[in-house]
Amino acid sequence: MALIVQKFGGSSVKDRDRIFNVARIVANTHNAGNDVVVVVSAQGDTTDDLIAKAGEITHNPSAREMDMLLASGEQISIALLAMALNELGCHAISLTGWQAGFQGLNKLDDITTLGRGGSDTSAVAIAAALHADRCQIYTDVEGVYTADPRKVRNTRKLEEITFDEMLELASLGAQVLNNRSVELAKKYNVELEVLSSLNPIPGTVVKEVTKDMEGMLIKGVAKDTDVAVITILNVPDEPGMSFRIFGLLAQKNINVDIILQSTGRDGKKDISFTCAEGEAELAMRVLKDSAHFSDVSVDTTCAKVSIVGAGMQSHSGVASKMFEAMSNNNINIKMISTSEIKISCIIDRADADKAVGAIHDMLFD
Amino acid sequence: MALIVQKFGGSSVKDRDRIFNVARIVANTHNAGNDVVVVVSAQGDTTDDLIAKAGEITHNPSAREMDMLLASGEQISIALLAMALNELGCHAISLTGWQAGFQGLNKLDDITTLGRGGSDTSAVAIAAALHADRCQIYTDVEGVYTADPRKVRNTRKLEEITFDEMLELASLGAQVLNNRSVELAKKYNVELEVLSSLNPIPGTVVKEVTKDMEGMLIKGVAKDTDVAVITILNVPDEPGMSFRIFGLLAQKNINVDIILQSTGRDGKKDISFTCAEGEAELAMRVLKDSAHFSDVSVDTTCAKVSIVGAGMQSHSGVASKMFEAMSNNNINIKMISTSEIKISCIIDRADADKAVGAIHDMLFD
Repeated sequence: MALIVQKFGGSSVKDRDRIFNVARIVANTHNAGNDVVVVVSAQGDTTDDLIAKAGEITHNPSAREMDMLLASGEQISIALLAMALNELGCHAISLTGWQAGFQGLNKLDDITTLGRGGSDTSAVAIAAALHADRCQIYTDVEGVYTADPRKVRNTRKLEEITFDEMLELASLGAQVLNNRSVELAKKYNVELEVLSSLNPIPGTVVKEVTKDMEGMLIKGVAKDTDVAVITILNVPDEPGMSFRIFGLLAQKNINVDIILQSTGRDGKKDISFTCAEGEAELAMRVLKDSAHFSDVSVDTTCAKVSIVGAGMQSHSGVASKMFEAMSNNNINIKMISTSEIKISCIIDRADADKAVGAIHDMLFD
Repeated sequence: MALIVQKFGGSSVKDRDRIFNVARIVANTHNAGNDVVVVVSAQGDTTDDLIAKAGEITHNPSAREMDMLLASGEQISIALLAMALNELGCHAISLTGWQAGFQGLNKLDDITTLGRGGSDTSAVAIAAALHADRCQIYTDVEGVYTADPRKVRNTRKLEEITFDEMLELASLGAQVLNNRSVELAKKYNVELEVLSSLNPIPGTVVKEVTKDMEGMLIKGVAKDTDVAVITILNVPDEPGMSFRIFGLLAQKNINVDIILQSTGRDGKKDISFTCAEGEAELAMRVLKDSAHFSDVSVDTTCAKVSIVGAGMQSHSGVASKMFEAMSNNNINIKMISTSEIKISCIIDRADADKAVGAIHDMLFD
């Protein structure tokens, strides 16, 4: 007998039929001899509807009242799911965060939420606190794939993936799991499984160490089109300039991803960096207002394509295959960034899908 | 400076405009130097919508999960109203029942509700606990009238009415205040005011003792069309028969209102009583199944019209005026019941509106 935490997203409980589908999965898990704790999101578009209601009242709602408002959505889901489970003869009670042990409250007993994607994080936190054997995240896909199966042919579902690889894939736009939930799972070593609520076959297990099944080194190819490249020309080639630039950006909470610095020439150098497109305008303003960097430009036609896989650095052939795939397709690489488990290239956004397909073909076919 | 509890029903907060209307009333009360505690119902049809959702899942939801579900409706209202108050510059925070002092929870910390009309009762309970100076119940009418102003001409809004009179009027179908809330207000001597959220002029104050303003003895004329008369013929005229009949009904939680017993003749008597129409079938079955009462019939074409006013019993002229009004209109009286503050007549349902109008004209014009 095991203790399993199961999390179902908003689309999995959007109506009566879906709620009963979830209830059957839970009941089957329970009937197989397991204890089950279930975490559910608000139904379908409930959260969006509630946000719209607040938007009619004010453009600047207090965070406290927003959390009070939005928490009602999950309260509806848990009550309906408990009813469905009881209807199936599976005894269940619903618990709000504070009833399940004073979660979801701040020091003033105000109701708080973890924001969008918070139910993944809640599920992992509960699994960690209860020392659960596994935390299953049910979604509308059957697991984690080597690339987006809707856009790339011949993708494969991964049987296993490490936390670090999953974090890289998530931050690269794979959007299967909320990143904070993976970080929390890694911190408390909670074994995750990503699987489908509509087709309940084994999904992808996310854990600390995986067996190197099928000899597959690369775990996935991902793209992120929410990328802006900001370039500062003619930066004085002297100590402290990088600190000045990125200190200014950090003060404004702008997350910088890839940084590229040219070799100095004639006492000058160029610095380029990437950030989310939504933060590019603020970054530009901060830099121009500082009066140190006048020659600043932004390119919002970029995308990042990446391959992820542990141990990649010790296999130099991987990078060259990635570059070969792009070369074969006449795709220009603007920036390159490497880490222990990832190689990323900044390219034209218009080439992103073609690049992912070509790299996937090269590495997996 | 006073402490005032204000309660607003679901129609008063049904959309953005109504919420701001409520927020302005609250802000004005606060700006006049008062402390204000606000109790709101779920928006518009929210409770009905949630009940429908539960109905799709099960026809027999647990009370615990139903309360968990329905409490979400009020949580939405309080968050939106707090946002609107803050938007008007009036500092406010929303509190669920348990945040306001562990209300709305049972001993197991389950969320509980007081059922339909529960927000009136909540408001009075909070007013009692806080020793509030007044509890204002905002509705869609401007106060308590001498009869239903939509159906009777020349009705008058009462400036004041006693708790007992209000209880009689409420149970007679005036439907302005939830009965439990009036009982609670009487028990803890909480001064109530019924007034309109759309036309905020002084309403009707409900209190223990009223000044006998305008020399008005009768406070109102009311009708109740949810009345069935059950008649048992040829009951043996011997001790214990009433206990047998009404004991059987009490076991089934059937509320009996008026009881009429004929004088015994030839060792037999007839007993008639009224109950809500929805309980009449069960009452009939209980009596027939007992094998003691075979000659049982039900009349579901009845209505009850009543006049209410403290001190009525010492003014015999009141009853005769009521009967005169019905006689003038050729309305047959089937049963009569009197109490210290009320006279009720059972008549044909088809005559009910005409009777109320005639009695009101006779007593108030």
